[in-house]
Amino acid sequence: MPEQQIHTHVFPNGLTLLVEPMADVQSAAFSLLTPCGSNYDPVGQEGAASVLCEWIMRGAGALGSMELTTALDNLGLQRNEGVGNTHMSFSGATIADSLPAALRLYADIVRRPHLPEEEFDASKLGVEQSLRALEDEPRQKVMNELRKRSFAAPWGTPSEGTLEGVTRLTPAVVRELFERCTQPRQTILGIAGRVDPVQMRELTEELFGDWIDRPIEPWVDGLRGPTRDHVMQESAQTQIGIAYPSVPYRDVDYYAAWGVVNVLSGGMSSRLFTEVRERRGLCYSVYATLHSLRDQAQVLCYAGTTAERAQETLDVTLRELRRVSEGIGEDELRRCKARAKSSLIMQQESSASRASSLARDWYHLGRVTTLDEVRDKIEALTVRALLEHARRYPARDLTVLTLGPAPLEVSLAVL
Amino acid sequence: MPEQQIHTHVFPNGLTLLVEPMADVQSAAFSLLTPCGSNYDPVGQEGAASVLCEWIMRGAGALGSMELTTALDNLGLQRNEGVGNTHMSFSGATIADSLPAALRLYADIVRRPHLPEEEFDASKLGVEQSLRALEDEPRQKVMNELRKRSFAAPWGTPSEGTLEGVTRLTPAVVRELFERCTQPRQTILGIAGRVDPVQMRELTEELFGDWIDRPIEPWVDGLRGPTRDHVMQESAQTQIGIAYPSVPYRDVDYYAAWGVVNVLSGGMSSRLFTEVRERRGLCYSVYATLHSLRDQAQVLCYAGTTAERAQETLDVTLRELRRVSEGIGEDELRRCKARAKSSLIMQQESSASRASSLARDWYHLGRVTTLDEVRDKIEALTVRALLEHARRYPARDLTVLTLGPAPLEVSLAVL
Repeated sequence: MPEQQIHTHVFPNGLTLLVEPMADVQSAAFSLLTPCGSNYDPVGQEGAASVLCEWIMRGAGALGSMELTTALDNLGLQRNEGVGNTHMSFSGATIADSLPAALRLYADIVRRPHLPEEEFDASKLGVEQSLRALEDEPRQKVMNELRKRSFAAPWGTPSEGTLEGVTRLTPAVVRELFERCTQPRQTILGIAGRVDPVQMRELTEELFGDWIDRPIEPWVDGLRGPTRDHVMQESAQTQIGIAYPSVPYRDVDYYAAWGVVNVLSGGMSSRLFTEVRERRGLCYSVYATLHSLRDQAQVLCYAGTTAERAQETLDVTLRELRRVSEGIGEDELRRCKARAKSSLIMQQESSASRASSLARDWYHLGRVTTLDEVRDKIEALTVRALLEHARRYPARDLTVLTLGPAPLEVSLAVL
Repeated sequence: MPEQQIHTHVFPNGLTLLVEPMADVQSAAFSLLTPCGSNYDPVGQEGAASVLCEWIMRGAGALGSMELTTALDNLGLQRNEGVGNTHMSFSGATIADSLPAALRLYADIVRRPHLPEEEFDASKLGVEQSLRALEDEPRQKVMNELRKRSFAAPWGTPSEGTLEGVTRLTPAVVRELFERCTQPRQTILGIAGRVDPVQMRELTEELFGDWIDRPIEPWVDGLRGPTRDHVMQESAQTQIGIAYPSVPYRDVDYYAAWGVVNVLSGGMSSRLFTEVRERRGLCYSVYATLHSLRDQAQVLCYAGTTAERAQETLDVTLRELRRVSEGIGEDELRRCKARAKSSLIMQQESSASRASSLARDWYHLGRVTTLDEVRDKIEALTVRALLEHARRYPARDLTVLTLGPAPLEVSLAVL
């Protein structure tokens, strides 16, 4: 791999700029995280950040709503906005020459949005529609509901909000969220592609240097849902969600945790895929993923199947989750490493992927890991390290949530 | 952009190899299309190709089912298999050094699969599970059902098959499909990335050169469904699908058609997004896409919303589809061009994207278009050309399908 150079600059107001020049691409991409995530939603008004994320795009700086949208499209920007627990995120990729103009627009969006009264209802309706559509998407719904039950609020609360919460929102509430949260400290801007780091730093200074830092109010911690639950839904299908504690991305043990989850669910030869899907044909889709927040993490596992096969699917899945601490083959680890290696190569070739990694690393670690470093950590993994991790963090303290026509039994034998 | 070199080689048995070396990447990717698509499914046994696509991966050449899966994972291959109307497709991307080994395995898969009797049931169950899961995914379901009504069978039949069809499948039927269809003529192998064209050609000769060509039986043409239809479904949501005829990828008028669909549904400033979603908040998701088969095409349009807002959503959507032939702004076309330009740059940086484009181009056109050529065609578009196309192919002869608690009225005023 060509050597990675990553330029880091923390401005006096706390905003962090991370730039990775990539010699072999014509594109450039950015990922801008600003501390206005759903954790800051007022209690009972969950969805405020989500509505803000719609509303904030409707005019900023000198441009009205339609003008802003067309200006972004004129740059050929492939863009995305979203809300996470702690940050609102804006990302985009386009030809490198257009990146500075795009960043100028996003500086207006996060610092000088119009938040026009007359567009509030449409913004709110958009989020309501999205939440209602989710009711028709049980695969996504079960995982949302699982997170509510495996993480305490506000971490487990869906970032999109709740229908009840959104209904209670007013322009004043959402505007207050914007005023209270968005500010340079904890704002992270990752840029990757055919860019000049000095030019990017000067541009960032110009666009964000005079943004005034102020304290962020902490959010309110809440409760988590029950660890065993069933949501009745008339359907021929049963959706199964299982969660158990693991270690976050910043933990020294993270790569071992990653390895264990990959033995379970990385690639077609992984255990869940093989045992639940290939061998028994129990379900179409089954996976486990390591869901890492900054300071806590859970392995989240999904299986969707017909109601008749749901109990067997749950039993087999739980058995596989537990069995991994009994033994892991050298060949299983070798496959994880091979998959990681090719995945790192692909990431390195995508400016969008690099920009988002830069910002995410800074959020989680306060520094950026190079792809070489990641590769070294993965290469250094041993079966023994994975097993030790699997024994320290077995599939215990389970949260099990099902969604479908009938509840299932969580077999005591596997607990 | 660096100049693209595309090496084309048609072997005597009809197999076509397309290679695009990419100097600036470490990865390599392939896309292998072999003529065993769902159009060849026996009538009443729809889903045979889909089950074959599961079954074919369960052992090939010297390797048993699990050995084959692990061998593919050992190569770090990010892989995908699927069934289209005319072809079964296999694609993968990994580090360039591993590509030859991957191609050896895929030569075994398409030429020497074991199709083991004892794994047939699990393969069939996998497809059944997938079809049942679709019942819970109304957004996907409505578009499947729309295709059934806007294209005659077998083109409109879902490539995954039907539950009734899959139930009737036996190992003999699926094996017969394999024997009848897969063969070198009409097989297309696209390769892109850090590869040597001469080496790729020698390898392809070795792997596929002695594969014997034979005639392909034509499929049986059938009927299309009703052009106005409603599928009752208890839900708070209504899913709307609209289709109308357009021109296929191979048509001289294709880029004009592409431009019109982009004015309607490319980017956030496009008409459907602006009028239906942003301005009125009628729905969360609305789009139109140009669905091109080899010799026919339809614009397929989707909107999903709450039952109460469904009629208004349908009315507004139809009005926008019709209104496009009345006038298009220079600014709208400029935005289409800007988006296309950045999208072409991104494609050029992805070996996986290039490999699949090579194979797709050959299938549709019998030749490969370079990205420069695509860019020139898009740059040459004028508002006048778009309007002429929109008038020749207006949103008439509509197929309208809804799915939800109550049927809607297709306003005669807009027809």
